[in-house]
Amino acid sequence: MSRFRVAVHIAPRRGLLDPQGKAVTDALRTLGFASVQDVHVGRHLVVEMDAADPAAAERTTRDMCNKLLANPVIEDFEIASVSTL
Amino acid sequence: MSRFRVAVHIAPRRGLLDPQGKAVTDALRTLGFASVQDVHVGRHLVVEMDAADPAAAERTTRDMCNKLLANPVIEDFEIASVSTL
Repeated sequence: MSRFRVAVHIAPRRGLLDPQGKAVTDALRTLGFASVQDVHVGRHLVVEMDAADPAAAERTTRDMCNKLLANPVIEDFEIASVSTL
Repeated sequence: MSRFRVAVHIAPRRGLLDPQGKAVTDALRTLGFASVQDVHVGRHLVVEMDAADPAAAERTTRDMCNKLLANPVIEDFEIASVSTL
């Protein structure tokens, strides 16, 4: 067993309304950032766990996302990286 | 001017309390993921903007983080990637 750090990105599905992203875009424009076109706000999770190998760590993390971390109806997730600690 | 997509990670500073991460860790263990050691929950932002070059896009995004997107007292941010659209 080794310890791994898995980074996960969870973002609202493309095409669905993203009111938080819209609010941030408007706030940035109000602050003078006229060049900003669009902002999407999601979550960045870092999970530290014990696993036999990186593939097992990634598999377990996908399972966590499906069961708890992400809402598959409105969110997409991707495993951004798996690193050994 | 080109259009760029800049990805930003904003996370609670290491060493500060992360009650959301603690809650997620406990929930995962309750669901049977006994191997999970620690979870940190931050935000993942994707900003689309017009800029002269990638360096300018990154500079503008750092400015956005300092002024609005991140709270420097309790959060750290890093520019994860800058890509051309």
